[in-house]
Amino acid sequence: MFVFKQFNIDRHQVSLLLPEENQAQALFEVVEADRNELRKWMPWVDDTKSERSEAKFIKYIQGQMVAGKVFMLTIAVDNMPVGMIDFHQINQSDHHAEVGYWLSQQVQGLGIMTRSLKRLIDYGFNEMKLHKILIQVEAGNTKSSAIPERLGFIKEAEFKDQIYANGQYRDFVEFGLINKADGRHS
Amino acid sequence: MFVFKQFNIDRHQVSLLLPEENQAQALFEVVEADRNELRKWMPWVDDTKSERSEAKFIKYIQGQMVAGKVFMLTIAVDNMPVGMIDFHQINQSDHHAEVGYWLSQQVQGLGIMTRSLKRLIDYGFNEMKLHKILIQVEAGNTKSSAIPERLGFIKEAEFKDQIYANGQYRDFVEFGLINKADGRHS
Amino acid sequence: MFVFKQFNIDRHQVSLLLPEENQAQALFEVVEADRNELRKWMPWVDDTKSERSEAKFIKYIQGQMVAGKVFMLTIAVDNMPVGMIDFHQINQSDHHAEVGYWLSQQVQGLGIMTRSLKRLIDYGFNEMKLHKILIQVEAGNTKSSAIPERLGFIKEAEFKDQIYANGQYRDFVEFGLINKADGRHS
Amino acid sequence: MFVFKQFNIDRHQVSLLLPEENQAQALFEVVEADRNELRKWMPWVDDTKSERSEAKFIKYIQGQMVAGKVFMLTIAVDNMPVGMIDFHQINQSDHHAEVGYWLSQQVQGLGIMTRSLKRLIDYGFNEMKLHKILIQVEAGNTKSSAIPERLGFIKEAEFKDQIYANGQYRDFVEFGLINKADGRHS
Amino acid sequence: MFVFKQFNIDRHQVSLLLPEENQAQALFEVVEADRNELRKWMPWVDDTKSERSEAKFIKYIQGQMVAGKVFMLTIAVDNMPVGMIDFHQINQSDHHAEVGYWLSQQVQGLGIMTRSLKRLIDYGFNEMKLHKILIQVEAGNTKSSAIPERLGFIKEAEFKDQIYANGQYRDFVEFGLINKADGRHS
Amino acid sequence: MFVFKQFNIDRHQVSLLLPEENQAQALFEVVEADRNELRKWMPWVDDTKSERSEAKFIKYIQGQMVAGKVFMLTIAVDNMPVGMIDFHQINQSDHHAEVGYWLSQQVQGLGIMTRSLKRLIDYGFNEMKLHKILIQVEAGNTKSSAIPERLGFIKEAEFKDQIYANGQYRDFVEFGLINKADGRHS
Repeated sequence: MFVFKQFNIDRHQVSLLLPEENQAQALFEVVEADRNELRKWMPWVDDTKSERSEAKFIKYIQGQMVAGKVFMLTIAVDNMPVGMIDFHQINQSDHHAEVGYWLSQQVQGLGIMTRSLKRLIDYGFNEMKLHKILIQVEAGNTKSSAIPERLGFIKEAEFKDQIYANGQYRDFVEFGLINKADGRHS
Repeated sequence: MFVFKQFNIDRHQVSLLLPEENQAQALFEVVEADRNELRKWMPWVDDTKSERSEAKFIKYIQGQMVAGKVFMLTIAVDNMPVGMIDFHQINQSDHHAEVGYWLSQQVQGLGIMTRSLKRLIDYGFNEMKLHKILIQVEAGNTKSSAIPERLGFIKEAEFKDQIYANGQYRDFVEFGLINKADGRHS
Repeated sequence: MFVFKQFNIDRHQVSLLLPEENQAQALFEVVEADRNELRKWMPWVDDTKSERSEAKFIKYIQGQMVAGKVFMLTIAVDNMPVGMIDFHQINQSDHHAEVGYWLSQQVQGLGIMTRSLKRLIDYGFNEMKLHKILIQVEAGNTKSSAIPERLGFIKEAEFKDQIYANGQYRDFVEFGLINKADGRHS
Repeated sequence: MFVFKQFNIDRHQVSLLLPEENQAQALFEVVEADRNELRKWMPWVDDTKSERSEAKFIKYIQGQMVAGKVFMLTIAVDNMPVGMIDFHQINQSDHHAEVGYWLSQQVQGLGIMTRSLKRLIDYGFNEMKLHKILIQVEAGNTKSSAIPERLGFIKEAEFKDQIYANGQYRDFVEFGLINKADGRHS
Repeated sequence: MFVFKQFNIDRHQVSLLLPEENQAQALFEVVEADRNELRKWMPWVDDTKSERSEAKFIKYIQGQMVAGKVFMLTIAVDNMPVGMIDFHQINQSDHHAEVGYWLSQQVQGLGIMTRSLKRLIDYGFNEMKLHKILIQVEAGNTKSSAIPERLGFIKEAEFKDQIYANGQYRDFVEFGLINKADGRHS
Repeated sequence: MFVFKQFNIDRHQVSLLLPEENQAQALFEVVEADRNELRKWMPWVDDTKSERSEAKFIKYIQGQMVAGKVFMLTIAVDNMPVGMIDFHQINQSDHHAEVGYWLSQQVQGLGIMTRSLKRLIDYGFNEMKLHKILIQVEAGNTKSSAIPERLGFIKEAEFKDQIYANGQYRDFVEFGLINKADGRHS
């Protein structure tokens, strides 16, 4: 187990961990429990059919991290994996990256994701030297969009018919947060 | 020479052609002549250093076309290559694609690009079965944004600090055109 | 649809086209209709079992064309694909290539192949800078050998037991046409 | 920074970390300082010519770890990288692995390596389910061989003329530690 | 059939041959006949299920020989393949290689293997410029260990629980023979 | 050294050997000595610039042999490599192969090549189950064409302007020998 950051919320210890195969079982159980809710926003849910497919995904992500394509962390509460948070679409020439995240319904509402994202943004701006961080949220998912708004993100786009799934198009909005401390000129 | 479409504007014959290596010389000469103007909007201009690099690019594009990643056409006026127009970022699951284009300053203002783009859109909606076509234009490039507006595209996004080039960030706007005749549900 | 050449024979328009996947259905139907006849001369006929295998073949050919290994054209009459003609075994150091062709029985006897081959030879000598063009024909296939003879090809070889198929050996003759206008010395 | 284990020795905090590129500078400085001593036992020292070659090595190791070929940790004292410890030659069918390690002379003699190795052995036996852990040490390197002996390793081999470097052969001894708690039969 | 060496034992001609696919049948028949005995020492026996898997193995070995990874010979008695002998783990920087061998029970006890190995050692020391040749033998296989002892090999290691097969660990001993005539310094 | 066949001519021993890297020096010396003569018929002579390029060629040939693409033998007289003979263009579906050969001028005129070729033909017909063996010889090279004629080959083709080298085209003739004993029907 490789620990990236640790902090406490109430009496719980929240850890941001390197994704490892031995987390596959716990993560798959969250997907199973929240499948109906996750399916609404996460296109990959229907492909996560077993603990084994989750383990294969984690292996794939490790390779992507080594290649610098993705930076993903497992969120654990009291050592139990309950969600993930990541940078993807990392653009090394324009210094952008897009954030993604999901969390077990059982531990939502405690501020875990807001504080985890804050740690990730710090890492993105200070260590990865990003200039802008983007988040795409489905239009109408107020729970998801509350998090970027709380952290100062600004809406940049309203994409019509952006994703086609289950025979229907859905709209998305995109938020951006620019690194004010970055010396590069706008 | 493989001809995709042909039409007349005034006394000139405009052809949309399969990109082939023997167009490299003419296309490189346009880049040389318009280098200062093209550099403002086209990040690839500084990498196009010789007829040979243009020929290598065309070869690369042919492979991308066969793989279904790109659909690109050379625009020729009276058999002389003067520009290119393309679909890239072709998304086969959400049925989107992004348009790109550039044209020699010598033949701008005649409506060549608007009519070429119309042909490309017809092909995208009818043959490639696209649902939405996107165009990104630098904020403030009114000449470029006039073309999508004239063809009914709607603004979807204003990206701040989107591209970092020559030590400076630039903003972009994105336009979208949805295929009304497409049976898929919004 | 990308058009290489177009010409008229009687009231029909003959087009030489870039091979594209949407021609697979029409070409497969010709193979189905003429299977017994084509099988005699074309070793690939028995492998062409479905529209899908024809489409895969076309995709493969596109890659070979980009790599400069093959130059193949679909022959269409009044926009309906009815056959193919090609250069293969393209030898860039000795400047030779071999011709292959086949045509639906429904449109044989009109001179379509002789005129298509003439266009291909022009392209081979003038654009590809070939010095010699070769055609292999089964010994005894007088219909096939009439075409090269009509265009001035000269017999160079009589190969005994050249191809083994269906438990039997068959003899082939090879014709060559040298580019008189080519400056290279014999 | 991903932390695998942390413990204290006197007033110092020792961390076992995931190898990451930003440790390259500190590790290279240790190699530079101890080059003459390290060269005696470590064949790779002469290839570590710059911070950049150290960074490339770390990148390579990350890939090997994802592939399950190697498990390597950076040893840091008070957040400063000072050495490495690893399992290599991981044999998944016979359940063996070989240990390697090196440490800056500046922090030797404090028990850092013995305690780090103890943590690694725990992980090897409990998480990786190893049956035997091997260490090869140059014959005569008493400092290096003291560590496995202190941890209960038993000598299994004395290899004559095992490594040829700088025009001379050197002898090595190999120690093995068998997992008594492992249920597999000897 | 490519002959490496030939010698006589009593009235029989022993040949050391390049492994070729047409030896697969004879070699597979030996494996079939001696399966119970060979299985005890040779982990590959259970994977050799047919003449075809033997032929595939020979093909694989040919590639390894061309790549310099292995040097393997088929042993034939009166032109009938009855076993194999090889160098594997060829270490080009330290000038070591490991020997492996097996022989049909029908022709054991005549000295075939001792004399074949002697030829292989000569080739290893004189042509491949090896400094040390190693043999691993299962602890307790006195028939196998008699051969290296007769040729002057010295025991270097006793590996505990070295191979795990069929739910049980087995011990191995390793013998080494150093090339006294080699100019490299110990 | 792996021996394929051995026979005597006068007092000399002629061996047909597996090509191995340690023959590179001797073969290169023949090429050096006969360069002006060999260059006339062998296009590869000008690329054989050093013993090292000869050694690389031999390595390449070994791989081709393992892949079944080529069957090549080194001809040695009294253990000194003096030429090569081979099957190439091995066609497994039509059961043809083409022969190539060259020999040091110092040992020409003794019948070495005719007898070596006879051995190769035996192997081709009996072991490789070939139906037809082909030889291409430059038109006018009577020394080379005497060999196939002596062995019963029949002329099948006269290729005009077949090879372009040093700014000039050359004509070739091709001979074929059919395996009368082969049961396949003509």
